[in-house]
Amino acid sequence: MKLVVVGSVALDSVETPSGRHDDILGGSATYFSVYAGFFTPVNLVAVVGKDFPEEHLQFLKSRKINLDGLTVADGKTFRWSGKYLKGNLNEAITLDTQLNVFATFKPVIPKTFLDADLLFLANIDPEIQLNVLSQMQNVKFCACDTMNLWIQIKKEQLTKLIQKVDLLFLNDGEARQLSGEHNIVKAARGIQSMGAKRICIKRGEYGALLFQDSDVFHVPAYSLEEIEDPTGAGDTFAGGFMGTLARIGDLTPQTFRQALVQGSVMASFNVERFSLDRLKTLQESEILERFAAFKRMTQF
Amino acid sequence: MKLVVVGSVALDSVETPSGRHDDILGGSATYFSVYAGFFTPVNLVAVVGKDFPEEHLQFLKSRKINLDGLTVADGKTFRWSGKYLKGNLNEAITLDTQLNVFATFKPVIPKTFLDADLLFLANIDPEIQLNVLSQMQNVKFCACDTMNLWIQIKKEQLTKLIQKVDLLFLNDGEARQLSGEHNIVKAARGIQSMGAKRICIKRGEYGALLFQDSDVFHVPAYSLEEIEDPTGAGDTFAGGFMGTLARIGDLTPQTFRQALVQGSVMASFNVERFSLDRLKTLQESEILERFAAFKRMTQF
Repeated sequence: MKLVVVGSVALDSVETPSGRHDDILGGSATYFSVYAGFFTPVNLVAVVGKDFPEEHLQFLKSRKINLDGLTVADGKTFRWSGKYLKGNLNEAITLDTQLNVFATFKPVIPKTFLDADLLFLANIDPEIQLNVLSQMQNVKFCACDTMNLWIQIKKEQLTKLIQKVDLLFLNDGEARQLSGEHNIVKAARGIQSMGAKRICIKRGEYGALLFQDSDVFHVPAYSLEEIEDPTGAGDTFAGGFMGTLARIGDLTPQTFRQALVQGSVMASFNVERFSLDRLKTLQESEILERFAAFKRMTQF
Repeated sequence: MKLVVVGSVALDSVETPSGRHDDILGGSATYFSVYAGFFTPVNLVAVVGKDFPEEHLQFLKSRKINLDGLTVADGKTFRWSGKYLKGNLNEAITLDTQLNVFATFKPVIPKTFLDADLLFLANIDPEIQLNVLSQMQNVKFCACDTMNLWIQIKKEQLTKLIQKVDLLFLNDGEARQLSGEHNIVKAARGIQSMGAKRICIKRGEYGALLFQDSDVFHVPAYSLEEIEDPTGAGDTFAGGFMGTLARIGDLTPQTFRQALVQGSVMASFNVERFSLDRLKTLQESEILERFAAFKRMTQF
């Protein structure tokens, strides 16, 4: 199945207990594309500024990501700066956000992307997500991500979006905020009652839960001794998930489970190094081995 | 396999967001025995005071728990009083502890218990746990629990105990305290390097991890919408675990996994009501159904 992602390509400055790096490659669509790219070709829709380093473009091309939907606009690339404190790597503290060219981003899906079966709407303004979805009439399965800001200021549009997509990704804090329920099962049920078909609640080091009808599927996080940088873990997770749907090529409950585990596998690699550095040495055999480790870790 | 437990039988006063109950049946050995009792006969070693209500004794007898090792001493029964705050049911706040007859408890294992294969040393002073273990020469598998207090004031004796038992149960906070490591995998590895053969780290609503050599097995917590009272969840978990070892009758890795899931199943029932109230209506069919739900929740 053909996969399109719409989201941000950014330059991040990140500080974690393991160190600090400035202007490194980041962005939701970047993490998503590169990790989904292990399983399927990815068609990227995003915008960068003229200052976006050529080496990053070459890197994306080297991962066989179709950049026909990447606009290089006048101005500066979207920049995010954040840090994580020791003992709480689940939560990023945003220090600075410079939207730059992203502020006026109105994605137009290239004609050659319009026949896609799978669409991932990374975290952007839900109005833009709705607009993108309306451009894509052939999509069989659409997943979206969101964030606390949109829950706070654009809840109505977000609710409309939630009712249209097939899967909503969000973290536990966002699920609580959106539903007004502290208990995570009640939160999921609350969001289902808003019209969500499927919800994937990500819980960082505690793994993720997939809710569909009365079903719950649970995947743990891989047990890591060292986490260098959790940035992009959620988008990497979604990349592993959607990439797996594309590769397997169906939308059965069994495939969703495999995809969720693959998402957790990919996220576990990504957090081992800053930015997308871990990916640069990641081998197919390591992915297979870690997927097998998830089986050993959970099957009884 | 024959199972013995040594620990506390208590009267608890508990306040949770769901309500408040005074002088209800509690104690680590009580929760353990009653839930293990679903799978195997249990031989209990504990002490109560002359004030211990006859109805509770009758209840324990009705669960086919062998009370030959239960001493009724002059004085008052051990009392614990605690509360849980909304949004943090993983952590009990102790309001009051009255050791009473438990202060001078020096357990002597009845002769008829000495041929037991399985021993659970519930949370008491590690010196007493060591003494009990030295009385039981035929034990094939011994598990113990502990608490923050003993890690703080009796670390040397606790370390000795850890090296002698086959499985150490503790929660994530205790694992961090004992190892000095925040990361939970590093914490487990640190405790292994102290000489522990196997470690089960309980993480409340996030499930539990079993570490053995380089292996990790993960079981999630059952997704509950309502938790009335988390008191005794850890001992119930251990009860389900050890009861399952006894019923299956071997000590293979596969049995440990089944036992861990059964521990999680039993704990998930226990927290649904105050004290041991949920147990009073719990049916075998419900246990089987929830065990099957854990399979559905985790298998891919």
